[in-house]
Amino acid sequence: MKFSFTPLGIASALPTVNRNPGAHVLNIHERLFLIDCGEGCQLQLRRRNFSFLKIQNIFISHIHGDHIFGLFGLLSSMSLIGRTEDIYIYGPAQLKKVLDFIVETFGDQFKFKIVHNVLSMKSPQIIFETKSIEVLAFRLNHRIECFGFVFREKMPKRNIYKEKVDELSLTLKEIASLKNSSDVVREEGEVLSYEKLTYLPYNPRSFAYCSDTAPFNELPEYIKGVSMLYHEATFMEDMEKMAKETFHSTASQAAEIAIKAGVKRLILGHFSSRYNNLSPLLKEAKAVFPESYLAEEGTEIEVPF
Amino acid sequence: MKFSFTPLGIASALPTVNRNPGAHVLNIHERLFLIDCGEGCQLQLRRRNFSFLKIQNIFISHIHGDHIFGLFGLLSSMSLIGRTEDIYIYGPAQLKKVLDFIVETFGDQFKFKIVHNVLSMKSPQIIFETKSIEVLAFRLNHRIECFGFVFREKMPKRNIYKEKVDELSLTLKEIASLKNSSDVVREEGEVLSYEKLTYLPYNPRSFAYCSDTAPFNELPEYIKGVSMLYHEATFMEDMEKMAKETFHSTASQAAEIAIKAGVKRLILGHFSSRYNNLSPLLKEAKAVFPESYLAEEGTEIEVPF
Repeated sequence: MKFSFTPLGIASALPTVNRNPGAHVLNIHERLFLIDCGEGCQLQLRRRNFSFLKIQNIFISHIHGDHIFGLFGLLSSMSLIGRTEDIYIYGPAQLKKVLDFIVETFGDQFKFKIVHNVLSMKSPQIIFETKSIEVLAFRLNHRIECFGFVFREKMPKRNIYKEKVDELSLTLKEIASLKNSSDVVREEGEVLSYEKLTYLPYNPRSFAYCSDTAPFNELPEYIKGVSMLYHEATFMEDMEKMAKETFHSTASQAAEIAIKAGVKRLILGHFSSRYNNLSPLLKEAKAVFPESYLAEEGTEIEVPF
Repeated sequence: MKFSFTPLGIASALPTVNRNPGAHVLNIHERLFLIDCGEGCQLQLRRRNFSFLKIQNIFISHIHGDHIFGLFGLLSSMSLIGRTEDIYIYGPAQLKKVLDFIVETFGDQFKFKIVHNVLSMKSPQIIFETKSIEVLAFRLNHRIECFGFVFREKMPKRNIYKEKVDELSLTLKEIASLKNSSDVVREEGEVLSYEKLTYLPYNPRSFAYCSDTAPFNELPEYIKGVSMLYHEATFMEDMEKMAKETFHSTASQAAEIAIKAGVKRLILGHFSSRYNNLSPLLKEAKAVFPESYLAEEGTEIEVPF
């Protein structure tokens, strides 16, 4: 089942000729989640053939312009192509004035509601849930209120080894217990071990999004063990002072977070416009954490098992 | 002296993979004028190497999103790169709430003022003027208040034929009169004709921008004789009913306006997303007015003498 991440914009505050403002698509089991929505997001979505109508949920980290200026055009275009289904936008309280302004000034033809789910938690909290996936939000360390997210598959129900059903003459009740990770004790005292008779159909995967943020002590705990981490790397190590002042991270700081959190793979993004060539940022991160990669606009990355 | 028009976005309301929302640069004598500012305008400006800092004046036809959603990002980026020079934005009264919102919500670091020059004239009026150029605004015929513009070089001062200065022993006072298009009558009754002794250094050129609009009776008069006309051609002739309902024009209607106004060259733009191939629109316009051309994003077109 699909679980992939496609960056649509990898610039930081100032876009460049080759880099769009931040916007990202997460495809989990063919459901599209949009994370941040910088200027030009609707164009980037079209270029990569993502249907606007498949997007029901938008996650906004914070209300700096490079993360939200695409909302105006995207919501307007959704209306123009006839959307009637409500859209859910998760973001800080200050996003309300932006959404209200869009609806009041440009929304007279909107046939859908924009439901703003306000993020204001002090500690990590589940903000979205289906039978198979859940999304956790937590506070980042930026100049203004800013949130990170973990998207994860829930632990799936275990499957029974088919040959064991006949071999042990398992009843439906016994099968149900075993699939729910409970051992079964038969009348004659025989113990049926769920670990031996069932297996996980897949290992649940997880993806964390951390942008914009300076490093902080609790972050590795919040994103512990995720399969893939997208972390901002606005600057290089030699600009650590600037990174600190502006509440951003360097490439090596991002890699240190990846190590501390024990993630499998790190994707770097949100690059300052001062870097034409991004190889030195990758090199810096790889020196700390070898499984580091640069985000590339429009390139889909599978979240690893 | 340069007088050229570069379309940056030729889409109508819905952008497509290949067409950006409306934004256009007019270069008159190395001064850059921005006409409309759809989403992604700042990116298109960068791609075509237009400096943000050379833009002092922005002309907004109307406040439909596809003509203004780029203002958020452009003004923010102008601030980020250190702009201190005020910027002048000409647009309808309703633009005020958009500009106020930008300044209040995202403008805490702005070191320049946004001066909104409100357009509300009922008949054509000069709204901008320098020694050598002037801009006229006039009302178009759209669903909401919408304005068109004529940018024109002023009639230049005439130059004197150098050889005549000695030949006729012209005095400085006589030369000044002749250059100002006044004949000189000498004491002995001799008449010095300014038309014979001077010449125009160049024929003043002019450019008209008409988008968005349905045809209306006064329009050819407003743009009479301009060297180049940019006119919207949202639809083709077979959709004239739709064009009328939405207050837009067809390609052949744009060409009819060009003929009635006696313009030299017509540039078509603002194409509906339903047309992948634009050749039929061009063909339709050319059948009426042979000097018709399609606007192409990033292609600079010289305004003809």
